[in-house]
Amino acid sequence: MKITRPTLLLDVAKAELNVDKMLDKAKKTQSRLVPHFKTHQSKQVGELFRKKGIEAISVSSVKMATYFAKQGWKDITIAFPFNSLERDEVNALTGVGVDLTILISDRSTPALLKGLLEDSVSVLIEIDAGYGRSGIVHDDNEAITDLLQEIKEHSHLQFKGFYAHPGDTYHADETSEINALWSDVRNVMLGLKQQAKQMGLSALIRMGDTPGCTMVEDMKGIDEISPGNFIFYDLVMNYLGVCSEDEIAVALACPIVAKSEAHRQFVIHGGAVHFSKDHLIDGSGEKNFGEMVILEEGGWSTIIPEARLTALSQEHGILKVSDEVFDTLEVGDVVGFLPIHSCLTANLMKSYTTLQGEVWEHLEGTSTC
Amino acid sequence: MKITRPTLLLDVAKAELNVDKMLDKAKKTQSRLVPHFKTHQSKQVGELFRKKGIEAISVSSVKMATYFAKQGWKDITIAFPFNSLERDEVNALTGVGVDLTILISDRSTPALLKGLLEDSVSVLIEIDAGYGRSGIVHDDNEAITDLLQEIKEHSHLQFKGFYAHPGDTYHADETSEINALWSDVRNVMLGLKQQAKQMGLSALIRMGDTPGCTMVEDMKGIDEISPGNFIFYDLVMNYLGVCSEDEIAVALACPIVAKSEAHRQFVIHGGAVHFSKDHLIDGSGEKNFGEMVILEEGGWSTIIPEARLTALSQEHGILKVSDEVFDTLEVGDVVGFLPIHSCLTANLMKSYTTLQGEVWEHLEGTSTC
Repeated sequence: MKITRPTLLLDVAKAELNVDKMLDKAKKTQSRLVPHFKTHQSKQVGELFRKKGIEAISVSSVKMATYFAKQGWKDITIAFPFNSLERDEVNALTGVGVDLTILISDRSTPALLKGLLEDSVSVLIEIDAGYGRSGIVHDDNEAITDLLQEIKEHSHLQFKGFYAHPGDTYHADETSEINALWSDVRNVMLGLKQQAKQMGLSALIRMGDTPGCTMVEDMKGIDEISPGNFIFYDLVMNYLGVCSEDEIAVALACPIVAKSEAHRQFVIHGGAVHFSKDHLIDGSGEKNFGEMVILEEGGWSTIIPEARLTALSQEHGILKVSDEVFDTLEVGDVVGFLPIHSCLTANLMKSYTTLQGEVWEHLEGTSTC
Repeated sequence: MKITRPTLLLDVAKAELNVDKMLDKAKKTQSRLVPHFKTHQSKQVGELFRKKGIEAISVSSVKMATYFAKQGWKDITIAFPFNSLERDEVNALTGVGVDLTILISDRSTPALLKGLLEDSVSVLIEIDAGYGRSGIVHDDNEAITDLLQEIKEHSHLQFKGFYAHPGDTYHADETSEINALWSDVRNVMLGLKQQAKQMGLSALIRMGDTPGCTMVEDMKGIDEISPGNFIFYDLVMNYLGVCSEDEIAVALACPIVAKSEAHRQFVIHGGAVHFSKDHLIDGSGEKNFGEMVILEEGGWSTIIPEARLTALSQEHGILKVSDEVFDTLEVGDVVGFLPIHSCLTANLMKSYTTLQGEVWEHLEGTSTC
């Protein structure tokens, strides 16, 4: 395979192993895996899940739901606060037989939906169990009761359960913190299940975030898990102790275009439009936009110590390495980088090249065709 | 115009005015404007320049050069350290008659290019005049002399001059600092021009960065300016004092999808995959991913004070506003945001919607078609 410009490599075997492990986890914890497809946004990666028996998926926009519906997915959750302005697209999906689940994250949504839906959709109430991003605040009993009542009475809304994304786990310092966070959220969710029961409504509990779904062993009472990032993982997950370096399934291959003896650094073709600007901050306060690996026959090496991207502009990346590594690299070499945040890198790169040289598509790369 | 999901609005009249002002600047300073097209990457925006008489343009990748060549541009600089791995694409461009200028930013490039080029290309030597990103370090006289000699002797390289991107200007605290930085770089460049002359080579000087090209009045000795961002400007340029708020020509329209009384905040559909993760840090250390404007007939309002995006995840944006503004916004409203870094936002959005409702393309949105 000849790489001449930034290319996102996908190790399909690693991705498949990540799926297998998450399926095992679901089995062991008696929960059902409803994978989030926002990370990969790819029909071919979707097929990896389909062949393992997955039928229900989650996406983060109506556009993404439309894309996967075209690939034959019939059971789709749009895991984003429902946007009533997109009712035409939603009606188009249910009109072709998609079993759609929407998130209600705002008190006003059932009223806004009156008369807009042509077919029934299932509803998960999104709960903000402390993360503070979106959802009904978990202890606002009045709002939750009112919502349940309105959904119950709505001709086109079928109540399904409660959903929480405990996103704080991405900022945990230790894995014990991930467990503690999940335990708190689970208790909240079980209380809500009880509250719904008292109104004659049966509720399932769905929780989704890769750190929790990967690390937490005790999932009693949680019916469904909906992680997304685990298909590729990335350096954020690795630093958090959620995945091993070897489980990271994507690497961005970039040509070295300049070598500076004066600055003891390299310029690579690989910038903010390829990696995204997400970064980690190391112990000495320096930014880290990606760690280097050596591309090898059939994959890539382990992370090369002291070889990382310290700055990105639109197309340029600055690679700083140890003195030892400096002498081994030359202009014209192509090196790999494990991404900080694989969801954003995949979204920018818009396609994957497998280690076998096949090009797999990404929604954004095909959306205007 | 009905907006239902994140949509990048382009005020063409403002963009045209930005072009006119930069053309005036070039005229006044007796320099030639070679606009950088990396910010907009759009054939229709390109036409705004063409109709003002622009013939020579700059881009930041071979892919972008190929795109604009297809739109009939014949004089193109690839303003990125030349990547010899992409020689086939470069030969394809010169093969169809494109007058190509490449950047040589590394000592090894002329040797690497031996036998690879099928047609002649023009060469600008990229000079690192203190910014530390890419280019030959300005005081490495030996390297510069050797490079000039090798280019002179190379059958397919035509020496054109020196190029510098004084990117430090983006981090200037005051506009006087921008002037001082440019003055230093200009002196360096004039010295190099002299050095080339002693070798019998005539050299032009090209400098490109929006802060400098906008603010600096004295450009004596600088033959060409090559800014890019000025076509749209953005909040970084506005905070730096380089553009007025009114000159920012793009705004990202986003639906409000949730309103939280508890957190006194809104969730918008607009996240890292729309804005990019670039942000400013305000006086109190809080991140700012964009400032809110109200969409109006024929454009948008001035910036609403105390209304900004404080956090972004993949598709979600968190909008915090003053108490006064809080009561005026509801779920289902569509509001606008001036971007922090318009180049990255445009690259993510992949198309523009003009205020007249036309959709203008962006290379990335069409590259796989």
